[in-house]
Order: sequence, then C-alpha cells, then structure tokens
Amino acid sequence: MLSKNEIKDIRGLKDKKNRQESGLFIVEGGKSVLELIQSNFEIVNLLLTEEFLKENEKVILDSGLPFEIMRQSEIEGIGTFESNSAGLAIAKQKPNIETKIEVGEIVLALDEVKDPGNLGTIIRIADWYGIKKIIASTNTTDFYNSKTIAATMGSFTRINVYYTDLKDFLPKTELPILGAFMTGENVHTLKFPIGGILLMGNESNGIHADLENIITQRVNIPRFGGAESLNVSIATAVILDNWKRN
Amino acid sequence: MLSKNEIKDIRGLKDKKNRQESGLFIVEGGKSVLELIQSNFEIVNLLLTEEFLKENEKVILDSGLPFEIMRQSEIEGIGTFESNSAGLAIAKQKPNIETKIEVGEIVLALDEVKDPGNLGTIIRIADWYGIKKIIASTNTTDFYNSKTIAATMGSFTRINVYYTDLKDFLPKTELPILGAFMTGENVHTLKFPIGGILLMGNESNGIHADLENIITQRVNIPRFGGAESLNVSIATAVILDNWKRN
Repeated sequence: MLSKNEIKDIRGLKDKKNRQESGLFIVEGGKSVLELIQSNFEIVNLLLTEEFLKENEKVILDSGLPFEIMRQSEIEGIGTFESNSAGLAIAKQKPNIETKIEVGEIVLALDEVKDPGNLGTIIRIADWYGIKKIIASTNTTDFYNSKTIAATMGSFTRINVYYTDLKDFLPKTELPILGAFMTGENVHTLKFPIGGILLMGNESNGIHADLENIITQRVNIPRFGGAESLNVSIATAVILDNWKRN
Repeated sequence: MLSKNEIKDIRGLKDKKNRQESGLFIVEGGKSVLELIQSNFEIVNLLLTEEFLKENEKVILDSGLPFEIMRQSEIEGIGTFESNSAGLAIAKQKPNIETKIEVGEIVLALDEVKDPGNLGTIIRIADWYGIKKIIASTNTTDFYNSKTIAATMGSFTRINVYYTDLKDFLPKTELPILGAFMTGENVHTLKFPIGGILLMGNESNGIHADLENIITQRVNIPRFGGAESLNVSIATAVILDNWKRN
C-alpha cells in the first residue's frame, strides 16, 4: 500500500517543477497505460483498479511491473482525469537528447506551442502521418504535462520530442524548412520536398520573426470561406496530409 | 444597471434548459462580440468593459444596441471565460429551420458529435472551407453552448446548424453522401463529387450502424504511422481539404 507521502508525491507530478525535479510523469486511462506498458518507457509503479487488472491480467503480469490495486475514486483523487475506471502509471521521463534527422525524413518543429491539448493533438497527428520526431522550442509547453499526454491518445510512446533553441538548431540543418503562414505557397499546388522540417508557430502569434529568415519555403492552406485562421493542430494535419500524399 | 435577477438569468444561460426556455445564448470575448454585432443575430444586451467600448466606440454606438458598462471582474463572474477584458453579449437563438441544399454545394452532417469544443472547431473549419450549412443529429451537442460558441472563434455567425433526425433527413436527398470510416476509399485518390454531404460520426463510436446504408461513398484518410485514429475535427478538416482541392 502507498504511504500518504508517496500519494502526495504522485499528486505533485501535476506540477512541472515537481516533474522536473523527480524526472517522473503520470499516464492516465486504460488505453494510454497499456500503450505505456508495451513501450520502452521505464515504469516506476502502476495504480490499477481490480477490474482493469482482471481485463488485462496477462499483459500486466507478464510485464513484471510493480502495481497497486486501488479503488476508482482513489485513482481519480490522485490523477487529473474526472473519470478513470482503469488506472494510472508513474513513469520516468526520457533524457532530452539531440535529434538526428535521417535523409528523406519529415520532422515537425514547434515554435512556442503553448496549449498542452494542442501539443498532444499534434503528437497524435504526427504519429498518424508517420512522423517520429518533433523539435520544440524551449518555451513550448511540456511534453510530460498530463493534458498533453492524455491528448496524444497513446501516441506519446512513439514520438520523440526534443526541446532546444530553434534559432540554434534549425540553421545547422541543410534540410528544407517549410513554415506555415497566412501567406505562402498553396499546399495544394506546392511540390513538396521528399524530406524536411515543417515549422508551426504559436497559437496567437504564429512563427517568431527571428526564425523567418531560416525558413526556405513559406506555405499556406488555401481558404475558401470567412474564418480568419485555423487552429495550429488542424493546420499541422492539413499540411502533413498534403505533404504525405505526394 | 442590471438587477440581481437579470444577472442571475444571464448566468443561467450556461445551462441548456435555460437557453431553450428563454431562446437566448451568450457570446464572450472581444472578437466574437464584434463579429456578432456585425452579423444578422438579434442582440438583446451587451455587457462591456469601458476599455473595450472606447476601443470599438464607432462600431458599438453605430449599432444602436443597448449596452451596460461593467468591470472585467463582473463580466467574468457572469460568463464562463476565466479571463475576459472585453465583454459579453446576450443574443437570440435562430429558429431551427430545415436546410435547403443547393446544387453543387458541400454540406456537413454530424452524427452525435458530443464535445462542444469539437463542434465549435468543426464550425470554424467548415467556415474556412466555405461550407455554410451543417445538419446535426438531435443528439449532437448544442450549437449555443458557450464552449461551442467560443471554439468557433466567430465562425458561428456564418454557419447555419440545423438539428434533425438524420435517419429521416438524409434519405430524402439525392446528393452523394460521403461517410468517414477507418476503411473506405482513400481521400488522396478519390474522385470527389462536385457537391454532396460529408457525414462525420461520434467521437468514440463513429457513424451509427443505422445510417451506414444511406452512405453512398465510404472514405478514409490514409494512415502512415501508429496512431489508431484522428480526432473528428481533424478528420473533418483533412477530408474537406481533399474535397476542396479538386
């Protein structure tokens, strides 16, 4: 059984400061916990309902991981989900290691994406389109935020996010760097390169001015109606869909 | 100045029951309030900060609409936004009148989209792609929910949503009906019709089985990676982008 202090520490992982100090994060919900168990993340503990354990006995017991059986209400009291009938995992964060980009690979770069839900949705979209690597500016929201992890719907186990200063990182690459703008070449007619980097900007301000001169190709999604803009995750999906269809 | 009871009634518009009884709804935030003033919605009252009134004096005074000056904290206490330095409008809902679809028009149909944020995002996407009409199943979340209105980013003023029983409505049309499924013709190679209806399903369960035989064309977004699915609003954007590029 977990002590009061252990429970307090797990609860504290909602805060970025505590996540950074401990190097841990939490994963909630049945689907995400199962994907985590089958990933290469190192799991410290599993808090599971008896029902969820029974339903997934083989996977959980075969993993050899430590687990605690708890009531649904206890798990909900520890985590961030309003409703969680399955469980919660405590896992170790991966080190922030510089990404090596392969020839012909498509990589995403994010310039100050602030909303954890948007980051999580972008990770899920990247995973759908076979992207494996995301380069994020240091002021992009935390990959290990519970809302980010939840919004990825398990895709956080397959995508590596490397946080760095984009002003240092991007000029070092010789790959094409496409940037999404309200003006730029129409993604419906653009001849996309085989590989390269797609840079997406902040929800309110787009791509910072000091990155604009690093971009080799401005791209835009043609608009047919009255809306002023698209959400950054929606725009990411549409551009990747156009890139991958080539 | 508003009476305590008037403020209570406006606060009550967060609940669908009260919205239905009064026929009113609220619109929050500067951008949405300005779009509302310039739309054909009938506005009952405006609660504005002095600063927002000064910044937009001409538009607001020229509209001849009634308004109340209130402190930001008072407006935040009445509405649903955590932060709202601009204002809030109370407006009349439009009647739920059967949509007439023009020849060559693309229309969206939604089968039990439950999340107000998803509905709002879909309305914004529809507006970007020049779609004017959405047919929603009666169990789709309320267009006039504050979260829906907020997520549209003003696009609610340009899109008509008609709530009806899709099992009655869809068979009456002779238009092509495209349905989004995990299996179906690849949207990258499909020859889209000029006009028609795109049917999108529920977040968890997709399109209900009793609508499947009405669909004339199953479509799917090709997947290149590991994610199991895309969010319904993301899928709507990608399919509309493929349809409109033709």
